[in-house]
Amino acid sequence: MNPPAQKPPVLAVVGGGQLARMMAQSAVGLGLPLRLLAEGPDVSAAQVVPDALVGDYRDLDTLRKVTEDCAVVTFDHEHVPTEHLHALAADGVACRPGPEALVHAQDKAVMRARLAGLDVPCPRNAVVSDADEVADFAASAGGFPVVLKTTRGGYDGKGVWVVGSPQECAVPFATAAAAGVRVLAEEKVDFRRELSALVARSPSGQAAAYPVVESVQRNGVCHEVTAPAPDLAEELAVEAQQIALEVAGALDVTGILAVELFETTDGRVLVNELAMRPHNTGHWSMDGAVTGQFENHLRAVLDLPLGSPEARQPWTVMVNILGSDQADVGPLFDGYPHAFARDPRLKVHLYGKDVRPGRKVGHVTAYGDDLDDVRERARHAAAWFRGDLGQESE
Amino acid sequence: MNPPAQKPPVLAVVGGGQLARMMAQSAVGLGLPLRLLAEGPDVSAAQVVPDALVGDYRDLDTLRKVTEDCAVVTFDHEHVPTEHLHALAADGVACRPGPEALVHAQDKAVMRARLAGLDVPCPRNAVVSDADEVADFAASAGGFPVVLKTTRGGYDGKGVWVVGSPQECAVPFATAAAAGVRVLAEEKVDFRRELSALVARSPSGQAAAYPVVESVQRNGVCHEVTAPAPDLAEELAVEAQQIALEVAGALDVTGILAVELFETTDGRVLVNELAMRPHNTGHWSMDGAVTGQFENHLRAVLDLPLGSPEARQPWTVMVNILGSDQADVGPLFDGYPHAFARDPRLKVHLYGKDVRPGRKVGHVTAYGDDLDDVRERARHAAAWFRGDLGQESE
Repeated sequence: MNPPAQKPPVLAVVGGGQLARMMAQSAVGLGLPLRLLAEGPDVSAAQVVPDALVGDYRDLDTLRKVTEDCAVVTFDHEHVPTEHLHALAADGVACRPGPEALVHAQDKAVMRARLAGLDVPCPRNAVVSDADEVADFAASAGGFPVVLKTTRGGYDGKGVWVVGSPQECAVPFATAAAAGVRVLAEEKVDFRRELSALVARSPSGQAAAYPVVESVQRNGVCHEVTAPAPDLAEELAVEAQQIALEVAGALDVTGILAVELFETTDGRVLVNELAMRPHNTGHWSMDGAVTGQFENHLRAVLDLPLGSPEARQPWTVMVNILGSDQADVGPLFDGYPHAFARDPRLKVHLYGKDVRPGRKVGHVTAYGDDLDDVRERARHAAAWFRGDLGQESE
Repeated sequence: MNPPAQKPPVLAVVGGGQLARMMAQSAVGLGLPLRLLAEGPDVSAAQVVPDALVGDYRDLDTLRKVTEDCAVVTFDHEHVPTEHLHALAADGVACRPGPEALVHAQDKAVMRARLAGLDVPCPRNAVVSDADEVADFAASAGGFPVVLKTTRGGYDGKGVWVVGSPQECAVPFATAAAAGVRVLAEEKVDFRRELSALVARSPSGQAAAYPVVESVQRNGVCHEVTAPAPDLAEELAVEAQQIALEVAGALDVTGILAVELFETTDGRVLVNELAMRPHNTGHWSMDGAVTGQFENHLRAVLDLPLGSPEARQPWTVMVNILGSDQADVGPLFDGYPHAFARDPRLKVHLYGKDVRPGRKVGHVTAYGDDLDDVRERARHAAAWFRGDLGQESE
């Protein structure tokens, strides 16, 4: 009488950071088994996924081992070599997102060229080979300062420089040369703020667009996100969502695509960066939306119908907990009594990571009807966990 | 400069069922490491907790091993022998809930006596030794039928009989005798419906009361829960919450206490059962309340301030997915495409358990402003996953 034990498909996840950890949390709820490739036995996601292999994602044999008997592989980061993804695809493992899509999140020059072909609005940009070409670019793009970026390998503000003259280009070019990558010059956009448009997209083409959020960066690191972006003109919100949907479709992205944008002071939106994985600017959705980005990422890569991305209340604010550089700050766990006692509606996410200065070790989320109240609650809690309280009053 | 790696306390959890699995899901978010004692390597929670030991919770050495270096132990079920809990407490491990509290969830005669001492309203009841005593009890409590229960070991309708005459008492007494337990007789209450009042309570005495819910049982198994209980008189809701808070305090319960009640046809509430762990009638809170019962259970047993138990929307309906007895039903995972496509706001929780007839293998939750709509969505989805669609139209 009993049906045979029939197990759901095992999803392979490459990379053991907090994004994989939060995917795992959603997978527990959906009853989906994960197999993890982790950088070490104690990294964030390896603490919570029993079926974890420790190894190097740059090694094809390791990737083949972790994806054995898995129909689908997805990623905590965008650093798996493209040629390995092609090899896995040739083995019959569906890479989601696939290598043709992922290259646009790996290589900023490829991304810029593709977005130009799609007529997606971007800052003026050019691949440059030396300081003279930077000067030529500056002359054509409103003058110095200009932004220089390594085409590959940058993240969280690393691999990005703002240069005020050709003389300041030495470090960027040396860095790029040492890494064997090129340099992309971009106009320094006069922007009012940064926005982010997230979509989930499945292999069969269904897509779900989250509300457009405002993100505040500090030193190139996401600091605070407000959902939805306050006072955003309806036509800009729609344009940002349409850009994200168009890019996701044109590039055949599967899973979460985050499109980070500038809202310019003259009322346009320009694409800054693409990320093809759950993204820091989507963490608010875990507590603030009907379907969090991690659940929708899993549903998308497994080609299951997507969940509603709508917000559950008028305002949600997420603030990152960054590791303090103060030596006398106690363990993060010690932040709980005050944070929870002060705000019984607060949601806290800690990633199981050791505190190091500037490291993303968790985030807090508050939601409600009153933006000022929600923002104050989230900022207070994050500052408390960081050990910054009293030093920072915003 | 770097603060030393300072780990949060490890919480030991005894029992590897779905309640432990859902505790683990909350623990991932809070950054809390768990150590699990599981009945087997593949049970529900063992699939998602790397630090799992397989062993027998009736063995004290095993309990000592799993709680080694853990300050606190909590439970997926109420079956750990009381003497072992006292031994762990003597070792310095805080049992939450503790043995003095837990005995009231383990032994129905002890529970009834204690509640009588607290003047908590209960069905009339008496411990009975034979059919003659059942007849005497019936004569004093409105006549047959009466309910007979083994004082220990029953759950989900097992160990409970409704007897219409002294002649029907043989099986209950034989069952109790074989198990070495007593028999409790209770008046068969003329009830309108069943309610459940959940509270979380911490060792320092903070308590949070969830909205009182309506639960529908089938064959003694929880089938559907509506939060809050529709059309419940305010004074009965308050009384139910006060009963739960009073019982939790008087019995020094730590963690979640579920008080299952009858709402009688003459407008009273009477306590039916107590459970001292996250409870099926609280699953709605995972998606429907600001703080789910599993998160609040963890916060309570670790003596952290509790999260708000308030509902996030007017109505939430949870329906269990019970294993089908049809041999041709496919794997649960195959239910996802239709269920998710039909209802993008649906929340599904699958427990990683093989389907067996009548077994709790998952639950679905819907929430919203319109009770009829919410109920229809949840019932449809659960029926679909069960493979019952078309056979059941309610």
